[in-house]
Amino acid sequence: MTAAFSDLDDVRTLLREMPLADEDAAADARARDGQLTKPPGSLGLLEDLAVWYRGWRGGARAEITRPQIIVFAGNHGVAARGVSAFPAEVTAQMVANFQHGGAAINQLARVAGAKLDVVPLELDRPTADFTQEPAMDVADCMAALRAGWDAVDAHADVLVVGEMGIANTTAAAAIACALLGGSAEDWTGRGTGVDDAVLRIKASVVADGVARHAEAGDGLEVLRCLGGRELAAMAGAILRARHLRIPVIFDGFICSAAALCLHHAGPGALDHAVAGHLSTEGGHGRLLEAMDKAPMLSLGLRLGEASGAAVAISVLKAALACHVGMATFAEAGVSDG
Amino acid sequence: MTAAFSDLDDVRTLLREMPLADEDAAADARARDGQLTKPPGSLGLLEDLAVWYRGWRGGARAEITRPQIIVFAGNHGVAARGVSAFPAEVTAQMVANFQHGGAAINQLARVAGAKLDVVPLELDRPTADFTQEPAMDVADCMAALRAGWDAVDAHADVLVVGEMGIANTTAAAAIACALLGGSAEDWTGRGTGVDDAVLRIKASVVADGVARHAEAGDGLEVLRCLGGRELAAMAGAILRARHLRIPVIFDGFICSAAALCLHHAGPGALDHAVAGHLSTEGGHGRLLEAMDKAPMLSLGLRLGEASGAAVAISVLKAALACHVGMATFAEAGVSDG
Repeated sequence: MTAAFSDLDDVRTLLREMPLADEDAAADARARDGQLTKPPGSLGLLEDLAVWYRGWRGGARAEITRPQIIVFAGNHGVAARGVSAFPAEVTAQMVANFQHGGAAINQLARVAGAKLDVVPLELDRPTADFTQEPAMDVADCMAALRAGWDAVDAHADVLVVGEMGIANTTAAAAIACALLGGSAEDWTGRGTGVDDAVLRIKASVVADGVARHAEAGDGLEVLRCLGGRELAAMAGAILRARHLRIPVIFDGFICSAAALCLHHAGPGALDHAVAGHLSTEGGHGRLLEAMDKAPMLSLGLRLGEASGAAVAISVLKAALACHVGMATFAEAGVSDG
Repeated sequence: MTAAFSDLDDVRTLLREMPLADEDAAADARARDGQLTKPPGSLGLLEDLAVWYRGWRGGARAEITRPQIIVFAGNHGVAARGVSAFPAEVTAQMVANFQHGGAAINQLARVAGAKLDVVPLELDRPTADFTQEPAMDVADCMAALRAGWDAVDAHADVLVVGEMGIANTTAAAAIACALLGGSAEDWTGRGTGVDDAVLRIKASVVADGVARHAEAGDGLEVLRCLGGRELAAMAGAILRARHLRIPVIFDGFICSAAALCLHHAGPGALDHAVAGHLSTEGGHGRLLEAMDKAPMLSLGLRLGEASGAAVAISVLKAALACHVGMATFAEAGVSDG
């Protein structure tokens, strides 16, 4: 299936015509959960994850055997404004590191038994500096959305999306500020570890960008004006997964900002998605709250690369293993209180 | 190695003569961590876990290939006081369920690639009602400690301990109250899901037990007077793991109460151990704080059976995989800021 969209209105149509969860499958899952040999509710989030997963997979077996992790990489015009502790060439260097198996996400994908796909997006052609003009024109934004859409493996049984891109916490902060309000300082954090002086520059760049694109009317326009190719690609992948009924675990602050653009443009657009973890990037908790997403994990991560969501795959596997494999009270001859 | 102790003073000696972490190995690990292709600190808890693990394993390869999970089961005299939502025979029924592979921990052990050992401890001979007399005499307590000590596989590379025992949140609450102070209500929670009326009975049983054994002088005496066989066995296993330099992940409220007894009797006794998760049992967070242990996970679990700690094995595996497998900045040719 090739992307069936050529402008942002086509994406808006796809957001209006999304499949919904299979309520019968979810109800079956909830009923089975109530029969399993444990006190009701005692598996907490693991129970909720199993019911959620079965709702999206319908009749399919509730088992994770083909997880896919996609890391999208992009470069940002605002990097030239000195908003990062690392130079822009690190994006391409880290893509090479991913391709040679040396990054954190390579190890985490192996532990999770997941296929890892790395998708660099025109790294030699950074987006425009969003304090001066929209980060992407419509054609660039559509190409990035389509790259995300096309990168999803239709046979995956869970999708994890993440990113790499020097300066992309600046883009994410600008998106959050534009869509959720508050000051630039509220959303601007230390990213890979900037000092106080850079943090002030970063906040002023965010403020300038938000002010310049104040007319952007919805999440997709904000994504185009303030985002970046890897953010648009993550949005495209999350949307494709929805149409394929593949449950999604999304990663930290930048990924959440991309998800927020979908959430803003299409209510319910993230019902098939869970937040893998809470990053230490300052605004992440509030960003998740705005989407009504409780993070699965809180491990003090702030790396990106889909790292937190990759760890969360194991938690989802645990949830499904319990749901599918446990005996019922009747099967086990256990008194149910 | 058979247990080298026959009374509680022998255990106190073992607590005084514990091996310490290998500081050189930990320093090597911290130095390596600083070279890996990620911003410093960006893997958060995963970095700390890798350094901690390597400190305890010394020169051994930092990889989890032989995790062992032990679930100890015991019955409690106080169950007859009506403190649980489930009848006492459920302990034996659940042990049979473990043995037939139908419980949550069976599925979670499989996901974690762990060996699961189930150790029922004289289920047909409950401990005494601690509101009337000590839960265990010295011989019973030593036998349970020894059962825990002997159950540890000397070749395991991480140990997870957990429990099953109807009424054992009552015993755990009494231990916490006796060693940490506060009221019985502060420590008494809903366990498997008791209603308000049972919760009041449970708190009064806890208060009676704590008052009766107010003279218990240290954590080991409190363990004997207010604990139970599965709690003593968990303590014995944690202590054995220390002497074998096997890192431990301990489970929820009851397991933490058993660990607290060691912590109280021997400062530093839990340095080789981490808390796998935060249970929803009310007092668990405060109990962990008293031992200065931050939980790895918070998944809303309250099942016991080592379930939360079993999920945490995957997080530790992820931490070690990153530590061992990632490229350094120099190896990958990545600019390090």
